[in-house]
Amino acid sequence: MIAITSNAISNERLTEIVQYIEKSGNQAHVSKGMDRTVIGIIGQANPTLAEHLRQMSGVENVIKISKSYKLASRDFHPEDTVIEIKGVQIGGENLVIMGGPCAVESPEQIDEIARLVKAAGGQVLRGGAFKPRTGPYSFQGVGVEGLVMMKEAGDKHGLLTITEVMAPEYVDVCAEYADILQVGTRNMQNFDLLRKLGTIQTPVLLKRGFSATYDELLNAAEYILAGGNPNVMLCERGIRTFETYTRNTLDLTAIPVLQGLSHLPVISDPSHGTGRRELVATMSKASVAAGANGLIVEMHTDPDNSMTGDGVQSLFPHQFAELLQDLEKLAPLMGKKFETAKAPVASFR
Amino acid sequence: MIAITSNAISNERLTEIVQYIEKSGNQAHVSKGMDRTVIGIIGQANPTLAEHLRQMSGVENVIKISKSYKLASRDFHPEDTVIEIKGVQIGGENLVIMGGPCAVESPEQIDEIARLVKAAGGQVLRGGAFKPRTGPYSFQGVGVEGLVMMKEAGDKHGLLTITEVMAPEYVDVCAEYADILQVGTRNMQNFDLLRKLGTIQTPVLLKRGFSATYDELLNAAEYILAGGNPNVMLCERGIRTFETYTRNTLDLTAIPVLQGLSHLPVISDPSHGTGRRELVATMSKASVAAGANGLIVEMHTDPDNSMTGDGVQSLFPHQFAELLQDLEKLAPLMGKKFETAKAPVASFR
Amino acid sequence: MIAITSNAISNERLTEIVQYIEKSGNQAHVSKGMDRTVIGIIGQANPTLAEHLRQMSGVENVIKISKSYKLASRDFHPEDTVIEIKGVQIGGENLVIMGGPCAVESPEQIDEIARLVKAAGGQVLRGGAFKPRTGPYSFQGVGVEGLVMMKEAGDKHGLLTITEVMAPEYVDVCAEYADILQVGTRNMQNFDLLRKLGTIQTPVLLKRGFSATYDELLNAAEYILAGGNPNVMLCERGIRTFETYTRNTLDLTAIPVLQGLSHLPVISDPSHGTGRRELVATMSKASVAAGANGLIVEMHTDPDNSMTGDGVQSLFPHQFAELLQDLEKLAPLMGKKFETAKAPVASFR
Amino acid sequence: MIAITSNAISNERLTEIVQYIEKSGNQAHVSKGMDRTVIGIIGQANPTLAEHLRQMSGVENVIKISKSYKLASRDFHPEDTVIEIKGVQIGGENLVIMGGPCAVESPEQIDEIARLVKAAGGQVLRGGAFKPRTGPYSFQGVGVEGLVMMKEAGDKHGLLTITEVMAPEYVDVCAEYADILQVGTRNMQNFDLLRKLGTIQTPVLLKRGFSATYDELLNAAEYILAGGNPNVMLCERGIRTFETYTRNTLDLTAIPVLQGLSHLPVISDPSHGTGRRELVATMSKASVAAGANGLIVEMHTDPDNSMTGDGVQSLFPHQFAELLQDLEKLAPLMGKKFETAKAPVASFR
Repeated sequence: MIAITSNAISNERLTEIVQYIEKSGNQAHVSKGMDRTVIGIIGQANPTLAEHLRQMSGVENVIKISKSYKLASRDFHPEDTVIEIKGVQIGGENLVIMGGPCAVESPEQIDEIARLVKAAGGQVLRGGAFKPRTGPYSFQGVGVEGLVMMKEAGDKHGLLTITEVMAPEYVDVCAEYADILQVGTRNMQNFDLLRKLGTIQTPVLLKRGFSATYDELLNAAEYILAGGNPNVMLCERGIRTFETYTRNTLDLTAIPVLQGLSHLPVISDPSHGTGRRELVATMSKASVAAGANGLIVEMHTDPDNSMTGDGVQSLFPHQFAELLQDLEKLAPLMGKKFETAKAPVASFR
Repeated sequence: MIAITSNAISNERLTEIVQYIEKSGNQAHVSKGMDRTVIGIIGQANPTLAEHLRQMSGVENVIKISKSYKLASRDFHPEDTVIEIKGVQIGGENLVIMGGPCAVESPEQIDEIARLVKAAGGQVLRGGAFKPRTGPYSFQGVGVEGLVMMKEAGDKHGLLTITEVMAPEYVDVCAEYADILQVGTRNMQNFDLLRKLGTIQTPVLLKRGFSATYDELLNAAEYILAGGNPNVMLCERGIRTFETYTRNTLDLTAIPVLQGLSHLPVISDPSHGTGRRELVATMSKASVAAGANGLIVEMHTDPDNSMTGDGVQSLFPHQFAELLQDLEKLAPLMGKKFETAKAPVASFR
Repeated sequence: MIAITSNAISNERLTEIVQYIEKSGNQAHVSKGMDRTVIGIIGQANPTLAEHLRQMSGVENVIKISKSYKLASRDFHPEDTVIEIKGVQIGGENLVIMGGPCAVESPEQIDEIARLVKAAGGQVLRGGAFKPRTGPYSFQGVGVEGLVMMKEAGDKHGLLTITEVMAPEYVDVCAEYADILQVGTRNMQNFDLLRKLGTIQTPVLLKRGFSATYDELLNAAEYILAGGNPNVMLCERGIRTFETYTRNTLDLTAIPVLQGLSHLPVISDPSHGTGRRELVATMSKASVAAGANGLIVEMHTDPDNSMTGDGVQSLFPHQFAELLQDLEKLAPLMGKKFETAKAPVASFR
Repeated sequence: MIAITSNAISNERLTEIVQYIEKSGNQAHVSKGMDRTVIGIIGQANPTLAEHLRQMSGVENVIKISKSYKLASRDFHPEDTVIEIKGVQIGGENLVIMGGPCAVESPEQIDEIARLVKAAGGQVLRGGAFKPRTGPYSFQGVGVEGLVMMKEAGDKHGLLTITEVMAPEYVDVCAEYADILQVGTRNMQNFDLLRKLGTIQTPVLLKRGFSATYDELLNAAEYILAGGNPNVMLCERGIRTFETYTRNTLDLTAIPVLQGLSHLPVISDPSHGTGRRELVATMSKASVAAGANGLIVEMHTDPDNSMTGDGVQSLFPHQFAELLQDLEKLAPLMGKKFETAKAPVASFR
């Protein structure tokens, strides 16, 4: 349920309305927009509350939300969510670029890649310390040590860091070292993990399950939001279809759809979405043209020898730098802000 | 890698070979068949071990297994795995029927349903205490209390019990009360949960992810087996396709495929596989004709008022009883053993 | 729209009602059942016709059909359609087995296979003369000559014949030689072909498009029925999913679903549904257990050298014979009639 | 098989090589590029021809093409195909915009829409005269009359026209009136239709089947090319997946993939790809950013009353005009040329 008030309402009156809602045993979430203020109401269905609210002065309308997710819904929170981390804004008019290797392999590797991500214009360093693998005998990541290496590299080069958290028990240690926690595609409906992430304030990048509908993705986000963590970004990373030429089918229509249904930022992952290096730059541009708030892109200095075998979808540093310079021209056409340092691409070879 | 010996080999010689393998730093898994004995070898690739084994007397052949899963593979373990729990055998020539409600709701509900499952000829009582739900505001199960209720009902009526475990932290408490632990479709690749289940001996029913390939399912099983728990059964419960008339598309071909690739028992779940009560009995029979080692079927005394809303796929007790009597006739044609008490179906109304 | 009358109605009165409907510019399709007679009405929506019919003596009820297909709907025609061809009944309680090679290759090949199909107990000889192929450089079938060879083999051994028709222009020649015309999966929505097949009376086996929903399949059947040809059977032959181990995913739930929504016979094709010989017999049995009215199964005397490369999904003759003897035991459990000549399987090697 | 020659080769020598190939009973297709000339060779496998060619002076290399399609392959024809129709170039660096209603409804409707398409900057008028419909009782198009209306509107306003051809028998009449013939998604593997289109020279827009792989699409194109018609463009129009929020899942990665595998122009259809008006403009831009050579977009002056019910995916004229002005800015960033007349968007309301 949402209550809508005009923006002419005084702060005192708004506070009174919120207190009234809270006294009724519900939570109130205030979202101030340009033209109106929306108070989202979460709690036990109370048939008389709507009626009472409708009669309060300052309240223009009270509307029931029929979707199964509430806090994630744009009806409930009409303005774009912008997540700010150490001065970097994710969401709204900003384009954020996350780059880095599939897996952290050594301090030297991650330091060099961080340097290149920064030089190219990226704001966030990606890298896996704990790796979800289909089989138990594959390389499973270097673990906590990798978190330390990433943090050092990020701090040194002035980058935020993002890493995948695979189970509730690792949330605290991952949050200690990384700025953003990623929920992988296989864990999108690991509800205990989602609930644990709802208890902290560290921003979460929630990847769409490879066969999850938009509705299921937004309900998964709702688990985190309902727990009290408002800092959620959604990520389209490709879905499983009958086509096997690409690793997945990148569903770029998800970007405008999710941005219509929800206020949360939407990031695109063309590396997993295609699984092929030669397609990543093109699909990165298409993602930005589709309105993405950011990209998460694999880049590696020696992709042919990456420890996960995912090098086939990693850009070389000069390709990454060239892509970001192309995005600098494209972003303004899409109403987005993005700037690189314009270092010559040749210097990344 | 597997080493094959003739059955004429003496136990002493077999022990010597096993000890030789273990001294080399590898694990040896012995599987005795009618015609030959297979020693599965798991460990670090050692180029000379194969050569040495091949030269040992008693060893007929040494073969590399190219599949990413080893312990789950039929190459590695040619004989059917039969899991015995309190006298009930699952796998091989036995047909096991698991029945019960989607969720445990009350002591009276589960007691009455247990009575009906037993009277109809079922061997296992199913019921959810912890429920995975798409959205955070749906009924999430009654929790540990439900485990207690199920155990009491199972003990009273002489049924094994199976319940879903949703996170590593709940494995111990679920294993304390239930005879079989179920991993749900959304958790098939929750690798921490799989690893935890590998550390106990309680049998596990591993449901196929709704978009998982056969290979991914067998690799998920490998996580449990590799941890040391050999008691795994696989479950086909329907996959996600473009067809929306049914809740999922029940892929019955998975049954002979998985039985060919693996030695583990394969159970079919026509309730989730179809999502429609009027299709469950027919698809149960088709499952048995496809060679299933068992069925897990939802049955409820008052499906229209079930707490999960899944009643639409639950059989009424008399339909469940009638189905089991039909299966009693069908099973022998498929080389399976199954007997009911032949109570009149009318008495289940 | 349907009008329902009691069975106590006289033939004269029924005729009067039908004439009344036809005078109103609509078509009337009478379907006599055990308990009631249903008159299906197809034509321009006439708001007053329903009202008038409802007031006519003998008419018990008039109901609007909301489905987009009418003639194919079981609401419209509650009794099973049974298609009789030269004494063979397809539909209802009969199980019909169609067997033969993917493609007709030579008179000797098709004659020998026909002999084996008949000896094993089959009623229909399948074989392609015109082959739909993904690429233009693959073997496209032997054409009209193949039709002649098939007819001779069928006539000699007392088998009906079925062959695929690929375009409207070939309908007449195919109907001249074959008893049943097959519409392939890629042509399910070749509407001109469907319309042409509606103008003849030769029975049609309409294969489900590999990504067609149940609703689309029934609408495709409606094109043929609406043209005036009531002799349509539906065929489940596997759908396209993410799983690539099997050629297609055989959706056996389609069988009871289609039999519930429609009165038309439903045939299963486990050869294309699995694409693997070792799965065909098992999935044939599962099809019959799911209620199929018949099977269409590829069998070849020399599958490794078949001209289409589809031999990998063809049974050897002794496997075909063994399957039919198994079906003879299974069919009665499913309320179906099927008998073989019980020739020793060894004689088919 | 292809033979590669340096560009230093004389025309006389090139002609000699071509004649040598043709004398051997094969066809030769010459494709001159910037750096080299490729002679594609189609015909019976001749083991010695490759050897002989390799030894001919001027021939640098001879390479076997392992793909099942040859003429459609970029290996075979390394330069982009550019199709020129009455001065409009499709392919290469040009961006072509096709706009118009789902179905031609009346002379007035198509004339007014043609005027608006032209004013906005479009080059091609789309419109269906024959409509493929799931069920036989839906509006099937106005037929040949619609072709006449389209031609008049196109001629009057200086637009090319494109219309769907549904069966071989309509190819000639459609080609008489329209500049481009469209093969619909359900007909992508209607091989008789493809063969017939190979016998003419009218350009064909071949839509990807909604469950066709890239390989199957290119093989379908090969049918037309192999028949002798080189003027084929490919069209991505959305594939069928588990997601039902959108009508289809627009697979934009198909654009760079197909452009890599083939030299044929690739057009995107965001109208059918999304099925929702509010997504069409965004996905049009994403298509161009993904490298599309053109767009085919539904636009209607009164979409809520369109005769096909597809109005829900049609843009209003002012939305179409605004989109084209946005594309004018975007195209150069992608190396494409596109210009509008820059009429004020408000004038399209």
